Amino acid sequence: MTAKSQQGWTGEPGELLRVGAGFRLADVDPDATPGYDGKKPDGAADLRAGAQQLDDLQERLYAQSVEDPSAPSVLLILQAMDSAGKGGIVRHVIGATDPQGIRLKAFKKPTPEELGHDFLWRVEKEVPEAGYIGVFDRSHYEDVLIGTVRELAPADEIERRYGAINAFEEGLAARGVRILKVMLHISYSEQKSRLMKRLERPDKHWKYTPGDVDERLLWPRYMDAYQTVLDRTSTGHAPWHVVPANAKWYARLAVQALLLDALEEIDPQWPAATYDVAKEKERLAAT
Amino acid sequence: MTAKSQQGWTGEPGELLRVGAGFRLADVDPDATPGYDGKKPDGAADLRAGAQQLDDLQERLYAQSVEDPSAPSVLLILQAMDSAGKGGIVRHVIGATDPQGIRLKAFKKPTPEELGHDFLWRVEKEVPEAGYIGVFDRSHYEDVLIGTVRELAPADEIERRYGAINAFEEGLAARGVRILKVMLHISYSEQKSRLMKRLERPDKHWKYTPGDVDERLLWPRYMDAYQTVLDRTSTGHAPWHVVPANAKWYARLAVQALLLDALEEIDPQWPAATYDVAKEKERLAAT
Repeated sequence: MTAKSQQGWTGEPGELLRVGAGFRLADVDPDATPGYDGKKPDGAADLRAGAQQLDDLQERLYAQSVEDPSAPSVLLILQAMDSAGKGGIVRHVIGATDPQGIRLKAFKKPTPEELGHDFLWRVEKEVPEAGYIGVFDRSHYEDVLIGTVRELAPADEIERRYGAINAFEEGLAARGVRILKVMLHISYSEQKSRLMKRLERPDKHWKYTPGDVDERLLWPRYMDAYQTVLDRTSTGHAPWHVVPANAKWYARLAVQALLLDALEEIDPQWPAATYDVAKEKERLAAT
Repeated sequence: MTAKSQQGWTGEPGELLRVGAGFRLADVDPDATPGYDGKKPDGAADLRAGAQQLDDLQERLYAQSVEDPSAPSVLLILQAMDSAGKGGIVRHVIGATDPQGIRLKAFKKPTPEELGHDFLWRVEKEVPEAGYIGVFDRSHYEDVLIGTVRELAPADEIERRYGAINAFEEGLAARGVRILKVMLHISYSEQKSRLMKRLERPDKHWKYTPGDVDERLLWPRYMDAYQTVLDRTSTGHAPWHVVPANAKWYARLAVQALLLDALEEIDPQWPAATYDVAKEKERLAAT
């Protein structure tokens, strides 16, 4: 279901963007806005309307967990090439809700300590507790993406990781973590333009490193690696969605819609009081 | 200095609210709006204007740290009686900035593992890294507040903690953590009204526990304990501010102004590129 107060949707983003059998990343047009009939200004208005819904649903999700440690949580996993807009999603979609209900984790290059453990060790520690919306900015998928492209691990270890990831995510789903995996997909030329803007603006220089061009030169290998990830890990309990992201406004709206879908499926309710309300009113009145 | 785009301030909140020698909590009027001449609607407009400034300063603060692990950070410590509005500060003041630059920690009742360590053990782990704005919703001050009121530790241990806290905070300040300590101060009758609202609204029942009245019955002892905390730990490197909080809109505006002051004192600047910009433009253009 799509969010009722969002007017521009003509299709279900959850269905249109989900990675199913036979999905080919190369066939996705990064300029497209699947399922959305409106233009950028409509998108901005719909994003504001969706933010209200998200805020309400997030509070209910959290409230459910206060007396119930087995209550559900949500985990949004964001993957993308550099400059595709992960930060913008966090800022404009996640940033519109109460920070108290969010568990945000940006995974960087593993530390020596982390490299001394299995690749999922540092990830397990960041799984959102009951009632929270967790957001992974990069994730365990780096360990199969850059792991493959940069040959950071042997092929049989990479192969093992696919199985480990699917088992890990299945376990999370079984204990009530609703997993939503999103690849933001920009075009090769759009990335060039975005990186160039960072070089042209002194207030954006800090966002650029020479390594960005090194990685860019490996674009075709990364696309192959993403295709493999999508083939191997888009499961029923943790499906991937590929979101065209050349239009930032669309990508934000689409991720928000996917989050709203996940929360509406959970349909969190205000929990009943675990105490005698009338008696507590009396106790309080007497103070 | 106060934020230039905020029109309603007629005084410096940093000076008016700071706890200095001879400060008496009992003399603070929780209904007052020190230094602010406007009314609630002016406060809302000024809060929006301040949010823009905070957002800009936060990004600069973060940018500074990307290549400089010794860059400053900010730590906002929030303490208050139940229902005084800590959550609203986090939601409306902190929530207006990019979540990627925030490190929020809500300290709950210590776990058995935490109780096995010194009271500062769990706190040290949450100190914001360079470039971040850290927010403590409750803090190590609980260990002297509830610690005293509920007699959770012997008097000589409480006494030791004051020294340990001041030494700890001095160490943080020395390594570039700008500490801002805020007590939100509501009246006894305002708390009653806020707790009663939670009991009257089924969608707020989850925010209430019978323990809230138990704590409320100890109000005078808590006020004494806060007075001692303010006397003992409002230092030059980590001063306390007492913010009247019966008017939620004022409390939010005042805490925002204090944060803006702290950031303006740091005066973070966009860092210079650590690479050859012209050369990188060429490299990128060639891709």
